[in-house]
Amino acid sequence: MITLHLIGIGTGNPDHLTYAAVKAMNAADLILLPRKGEEKSDLADLRRTICAQLLTQPVRIVEFDMPKRSDQGCYIDAVIDWHDAIAALWQEQIERHLPDGGTMALLVWGDPSLYDSSLRIAQRMTGASVQVIPGITSMQALTAAHGICLNDLAEPVLITTGRQLRERGWPGAANTLVVMLDGDCAFQTLTDEGIDIWWGAYLGMAQQALAQGPVLTVGRQIIERRAALRRDHGWIMDIYLLRKRR
Amino acid sequence: MITLHLIGIGTGNPDHLTYAAVKAMNAADLILLPRKGEEKSDLADLRRTICAQLLTQPVRIVEFDMPKRSDQGCYIDAVIDWHDAIAALWQEQIERHLPDGGTMALLVWGDPSLYDSSLRIAQRMTGASVQVIPGITSMQALTAAHGICLNDLAEPVLITTGRQLRERGWPGAANTLVVMLDGDCAFQTLTDEGIDIWWGAYLGMAQQALAQGPVLTVGRQIIERRAALRRDHGWIMDIYLLRKRR
Repeated sequence: MITLHLIGIGTGNPDHLTYAAVKAMNAADLILLPRKGEEKSDLADLRRTICAQLLTQPVRIVEFDMPKRSDQGCYIDAVIDWHDAIAALWQEQIERHLPDGGTMALLVWGDPSLYDSSLRIAQRMTGASVQVIPGITSMQALTAAHGICLNDLAEPVLITTGRQLRERGWPGAANTLVVMLDGDCAFQTLTDEGIDIWWGAYLGMAQQALAQGPVLTVGRQIIERRAALRRDHGWIMDIYLLRKRR
Repeated sequence: MITLHLIGIGTGNPDHLTYAAVKAMNAADLILLPRKGEEKSDLADLRRTICAQLLTQPVRIVEFDMPKRSDQGCYIDAVIDWHDAIAALWQEQIERHLPDGGTMALLVWGDPSLYDSSLRIAQRMTGASVQVIPGITSMQALTAAHGICLNDLAEPVLITTGRQLRERGWPGAANTLVVMLDGDCAFQTLTDEGIDIWWGAYLGMAQQALAQGPVLTVGRQIIERRAALRRDHGWIMDIYLLRKRR
């Protein structure tokens, strides 16, 4: 019998882990760490640092090379194929390292519920039970760093992606948007003068970067700064909140 | 100089606190705990338990009686008046207990950014700097308990309130809604057969209750169960996720 623990680890600051997350890490028989290629080696290092700092038990740690997602054809189809490939790799690691069953833990950036594939990949594993340990999302690290509320008083908030914002524009349902998974600065498609942006990159980490102001002016600065940071660090993870002024 | 630490403490499970939250609690000169009247004394007890379990330093803890929000007139006006009254009480506690400055910590259910008043109240305090320590929200405790994703693959999610759902119906922008602050089971206004609900109450606590299924059938059971739980415990905090089947 295999139990999969999907452990939310926040955005890279070991202090953002919960007690439950650290207990689950220490209780695992195997922690599986993905390697994502040279340009994201900082992220693999961060997971290693979190293990080194927070494991008080001898837990076997195994690294595996993440397959690459195809950038050909339909985006959703490519993602589904990619999840199939990752599930096959997880299964292979389980057969090799846990032939008699046990608990395999995966350390998930942010929270396993929010724009993360781990739960969908885990659902492909036959005979494994899944437990989720929630973690601090980049959305919460963003609002905490800026000292702002996610929602206006009693008002809704839409969490969406760069792709959705670019292709569909500002949705009618909410005055506040949180935009994730945006490698192309979709905020630059906005033309309304009454929108403010709160942006953050590398949230919770030493290199944390923040910017805030009207999207039409500050947005341009963010595009330049983001490109420079990406060049310097070799990778970037960022997120932003947009709010229409009343 | 006064520093306010707004510390997200999750939904009542001490294991859901982050290391950062516990460090901030221990570093405070004063922790202010609200008393909300008899029917919510469980919640005050939970905060006391969290302090008892997680404080390793002698930190002064002061309790104060929360004013009641008026249920007359405009909802938003009543909330604004209520926040003014709470800010005046915080100020009074600071003058009494921290006349030479220091750090006052408040323990906030969930995360201070999400449908919580503490940041708005803190903005009324002159001369105080504010730091937010993020915490696990009930939204994350809900998706973790059910082992589900918040979003469909690459799709948006709307976080909203019971009032909004009741008054405006299902918003067009998202296939998934998270509904908070709903004392009246606004999901019973939905008539579409293709909607599923994932509901949770007392998330993370010993008395955690979960239900899941088509909203038209399971919704009726939730209404009865919610009323019974509320009767038994004297209070209830719950949240649900709604998703249209594709």
